[in-house]
Amino acid sequence: MSKAIAGPEIERMIQLLSRLPGLGPRSARKAALSLLKRREDLLMPLADALSAAVDRITHCSECGNVDTVSPCSLCRDGRRDRSVVVVVEEVGDLWALERAAAINGVYHVLGGHLSPLDGVGPDNLNIPRLLERASSGEVKEVILALNATVEGQSTMHYIKERLAPTNVAVSEIQKGVPIGGELDYLDDGTLAAAIKSRRRI
Amino acid sequence: MSKAIAGPEIERMIQLLSRLPGLGPRSARKAALSLLKRREDLLMPLADALSAAVDRITHCSECGNVDTVSPCSLCRDGRRDRSVVVVVEEVGDLWALERAAAINGVYHVLGGHLSPLDGVGPDNLNIPRLLERASSGEVKEVILALNATVEGQSTMHYIKERLAPTNVAVSEIQKGVPIGGELDYLDDGTLAAAIKSRRRI
Repeated sequence: MSKAIAGPEIERMIQLLSRLPGLGPRSARKAALSLLKRREDLLMPLADALSAAVDRITHCSECGNVDTVSPCSLCRDGRRDRSVVVVVEEVGDLWALERAAAINGVYHVLGGHLSPLDGVGPDNLNIPRLLERASSGEVKEVILALNATVEGQSTMHYIKERLAPTNVAVSEIQKGVPIGGELDYLDDGTLAAAIKSRRRI
Repeated sequence: MSKAIAGPEIERMIQLLSRLPGLGPRSARKAALSLLKRREDLLMPLADALSAAVDRITHCSECGNVDTVSPCSLCRDGRRDRSVVVVVEEVGDLWALERAAAINGVYHVLGGHLSPLDGVGPDNLNIPRLLERASSGEVKEVILALNATVEGQSTMHYIKERLAPTNVAVSEIQKGVPIGGELDYLDDGTLAAAIKSRRRI
């Protein structure tokens, strides 16, 4: 949009909204208009929610999840089986598994996958903390729920080798996941099946 | 999403984002994740932009446009021909005409269309102020750029009759606009052509 239609504050709002995934320039304008028309019941609550997020969002010291408390609400949940740790690449994958109610364990969020070409090594991910947790004695099984991509699989093999000296059982989710697919895009049934038929490696 | 995945603040953020046009529950989660991952360069600026909007957004006392100043930046723009007033239903229509650079006049935003069944009469829209402006002596032509819908057209005829006693010329945009279509969805060329070939009524 070369020409400024409204004041700079509105233009800036449209420009920032258009950087959200799923919103292009046109839908960002629609979203901005909707916010401007619904000042009380949408704009104000969303402004407050985002400001609260800025102030309070943190990473869980235990598992790397994002939440407003650390340890996060999942790690604090006493009804979860703390002997099973599900390792995922991103918070979105954790959300997908929770939506599928695939397993009642705890999680470990790596924050990505190994990518030597991009300079992402084990210490750039949340891997050292995973090894600590696995050695603590509380953990009996680590389930590697990484994306079925080349990077996800090589990250999985690296973690499997690093966990070999510990006493924990290491599993991977079943390859019911389509090759090249990412967890966050799959249906709940596939995710639940993949968790259920995990195989020892 | 029946099950809370993260703390209530994040759930609330997802729920509010999903109420924006163009974002459903899944894309709202994607957007929220993107905001959480990009705290500094996206979440904080957007939170600030929305808070600024809450504080400063107002309706132009002259034309009904939304802006951070009143009169709005378009009404303040000395390079515009103040003798031509383009009447639109919504701010989105004004934005669409400005994107098309269809005309260099000023605007009048009605805030909707007449809809007796929904209890929307002339006094619920910005029509009284339009009649005032048309009688001020400054306005030479009123261009009715309303949607080519039943409601838009009946609103147009109502305004045309109310403007009859004044001395201003009243035009409507050409019916190049597809029947049933709404201005905000049209391409710039169609909008510009429709403004250019307006006919006296």
